[in-house]
Amino acid sequence: MAPSVSYSMTVRLEVPAGGTAVSQITTVVESSGGSVTALDVTASGHERLRMDVTIAASSTAHADEIVDKLRAIDGVALGKVSDRTFLMHLGGKIEMSSKHPIRNRDDLSMVYTPGVARVCTQIAEHPEDARRLTIKRNSIAVVTDGSAVLGLGNIGPEASLPVMEGKAALFKRFAGIDAWPLCLDTQDTDAIVEIVKAIAPGFAGINLEDISAPRCFEIEARLREALDIPVFHDDQHGTAIVVLSALYNALRVVDKRIEDIRVVMSGAGAAGTAILKLLLEAGVKHAVVADIHGVVHSGRDDVAAAEEGSPMRWVADHTNPEGRTGTLKDAVVGADVFIGVSAPNVLDGSDVAKMAEGAIVFALANPDPEVDPAAARETASVVATGRSDFPNQINNVLVFPGVFRGLLDAQSHTVDDAMMLAAARALADVVGQDELNPNYIVPSVFNEKVSGAVADAVRQAAQDEAAQAAARAGADGPGEA
Amino acid sequence: MAPSVSYSMTVRLEVPAGGTAVSQITTVVESSGGSVTALDVTASGHERLRMDVTIAASSTAHADEIVDKLRAIDGVALGKVSDRTFLMHLGGKIEMSSKHPIRNRDDLSMVYTPGVARVCTQIAEHPEDARRLTIKRNSIAVVTDGSAVLGLGNIGPEASLPVMEGKAALFKRFAGIDAWPLCLDTQDTDAIVEIVKAIAPGFAGINLEDISAPRCFEIEARLREALDIPVFHDDQHGTAIVVLSALYNALRVVDKRIEDIRVVMSGAGAAGTAILKLLLEAGVKHAVVADIHGVVHSGRDDVAAAEEGSPMRWVADHTNPEGRTGTLKDAVVGADVFIGVSAPNVLDGSDVAKMAEGAIVFALANPDPEVDPAAARETASVVATGRSDFPNQINNVLVFPGVFRGLLDAQSHTVDDAMMLAAARALADVVGQDELNPNYIVPSVFNEKVSGAVADAVRQAAQDEAAQAAARAGADGPGEA
Repeated sequence: MAPSVSYSMTVRLEVPAGGTAVSQITTVVESSGGSVTALDVTASGHERLRMDVTIAASSTAHADEIVDKLRAIDGVALGKVSDRTFLMHLGGKIEMSSKHPIRNRDDLSMVYTPGVARVCTQIAEHPEDARRLTIKRNSIAVVTDGSAVLGLGNIGPEASLPVMEGKAALFKRFAGIDAWPLCLDTQDTDAIVEIVKAIAPGFAGINLEDISAPRCFEIEARLREALDIPVFHDDQHGTAIVVLSALYNALRVVDKRIEDIRVVMSGAGAAGTAILKLLLEAGVKHAVVADIHGVVHSGRDDVAAAEEGSPMRWVADHTNPEGRTGTLKDAVVGADVFIGVSAPNVLDGSDVAKMAEGAIVFALANPDPEVDPAAARETASVVATGRSDFPNQINNVLVFPGVFRGLLDAQSHTVDDAMMLAAARALADVVGQDELNPNYIVPSVFNEKVSGAVADAVRQAAQDEAAQAAARAGADGPGEA
Repeated sequence: MAPSVSYSMTVRLEVPAGGTAVSQITTVVESSGGSVTALDVTASGHERLRMDVTIAASSTAHADEIVDKLRAIDGVALGKVSDRTFLMHLGGKIEMSSKHPIRNRDDLSMVYTPGVARVCTQIAEHPEDARRLTIKRNSIAVVTDGSAVLGLGNIGPEASLPVMEGKAALFKRFAGIDAWPLCLDTQDTDAIVEIVKAIAPGFAGINLEDISAPRCFEIEARLREALDIPVFHDDQHGTAIVVLSALYNALRVVDKRIEDIRVVMSGAGAAGTAILKLLLEAGVKHAVVADIHGVVHSGRDDVAAAEEGSPMRWVADHTNPEGRTGTLKDAVVGADVFIGVSAPNVLDGSDVAKMAEGAIVFALANPDPEVDPAAARETASVVATGRSDFPNQINNVLVFPGVFRGLLDAQSHTVDDAMMLAAARALADVVGQDELNPNYIVPSVFNEKVSGAVADAVRQAAQDEAAQAAARAGADGPGEA
């Protein structure tokens, strides 16, 4: 691992003003595999200097090791060591603020009683005005039960809060959306459905986050059925959209059509299932899924035993038309595309070498991909991962802010495949023909065009569908001759 | 009613540059009983002036009437009429913001993945760090079911949102607290209890708001039992604290001791019951409560029939030691204090005249008090109302921000009578002996000392109790000799 800002610390040091102590500090950090990213002298005298040195390490243990080596330098006195990531989290990362100053009694009587009563009455009489006169229009709830947080697993609601705060901060940063985290102290499917239904009036969308499979499927399906605001499980649909977008551009690079490719997927969890569904919607005809027991086919004992309507049965019914059996390694031979959302190192370079000419490899397990990207790149034409230290990072941040911006702007009651396909296409199109190459199939998350392009596409798709629905309703009515 | 900023509008007008049109505008507004609060000329030519005139009216109908009269002035062309209160509500009154800029990949990797994972792990291993590393420390949920909103009644969750947003804005303005509204789409007691329990991990306190009696009693009691964060129903306890505080100061004015006074209350709803309980805690010995059926006594049929443990039975068991019967008007004869949290005009000036020397009248029904304050003031020594256009406004804004600030700062797991008594005393003491008079028993909500004084008192009381609880736990342990 390269040194990373996520293991970054600021170390306060006092060193002799003369001599080689200062240069020794840099030398020690770099020879230990760390990286000095800032060095500020905060106090200087004839005898001693005080400085704050910011150092990127590659792990917590590595950071400790560097500190120990700094302490051993002759004449150096070590002060406070501050972890920059923890410093950024002190007291939380988000806050609530009022849009209007409350300076005097006049302000008070408009923001609160008695003036507010007229606004309440207006909404009671015209419920659609809630989107005009309240925060509902621009607010979404980021809801988790803490059961599948990042790669950390079931860490519970309190420990998931930093992720949900971060998510809320990204919603604001990239799409101007007001999101508030709700970390639930229950992992019961029925309870979660009831809770989210109950809190919905104050929000124009629900972003489900880090809820484990298979509960996440049922929760999402029941909420979509019950609510008149869109419900989006980012781990599923955000991932699916950005994967499809990257695939569109990878296919442009290798000049293949989506209808013709053979796709092999590793992993049939929440993300895997959602990716598969969207790929099929987008026109993929030949897909095979493998899980820990090998290729999924309807003859497999556990698949045959799976309940009607279960995700496993759905996968078996919609993939592998040729009835392949065997292992993942068998399946990838001759495949055009490999998409992994599973576990580290399930393939090696020799497996990738057996794929078809112009192979595309998306190895998305984090932090360790399904196949070493360097090994994959030896024979594959396009390689992408979930990591920020390789080219082509498949990152949901490219998608969820723009998707919700579009949904909120359209005042959409739903989110569906057509909107997600539109989002994937719009994101792909942000990469111009002159920019496209094997190492640039997805734009940077800081590309200013991304969020707006995705939002426009989703808003348009949502408005088109609403218009079609209205036309259908009209066609059934008395106006039809 | 006097013209009020809560019925304030800005009217765009075009008038001839010469002549008397401008002065006619002011004359028309004032002769109609309105008030011009601002007049801006926004464009001026040789022939015509364009101006924005801001006018306070006393009701919506009154505002319409003024507009019609302006339209009738010769040579005046009427443009857009904007309601200032509605303008302030467009798009909602609060928003979520990120405390840190997210400028580049380094920021992203600390605020979100991969850096955030270390913070999550820290909290999973040390749950108490949630208060250090997340928004929990400073966040409260403002929870309503929309069943008893202001004087508007059961208007439902969407229509209650403007009140909850306003409340959140006040929490920030007066105490720096991050509050987020949760307007629930259920009025089922069990469901509300389960929902609030489930969303609690991300908050350090729960402010229940505008939930109708008697459900509010059970919801609060069950949540206090279940949760390790304080649960406060502002309609009950906020009101009780500010009433007790005002009573402390009114008693200073008339020089009576709380143990000696006879208090008559009108109304046994949520606020009335809470006020009664706190008054008894504060030392009141003689209290009588009347409701729509007259004085509450255990011989009354409906009281005898009330369930064991019901609020009505509680009132009967803790008041009226002399076993009085009859009407409210009977009960106030000779009473020292009248407190109304009920309905308009249940008393008149002649009833107040029959109270004891140095009578104190708190007529808190809104917008129309239990007795005309001007009539009450003819014989009573101190009169207070819930209205902002009379002296001595009993306003919860004086209390709830400081109470929660103190609770959050103490990281308190509860809120109890001792903390509420401390809050009432601290609020009373903000009015110095040299300031105290019959028309100044409560400080202004914009008095900068209020929130801090209440917060300090509550924090101290919470810390004292936590220390006593720890000492009691220690006394049971092996350390006790």
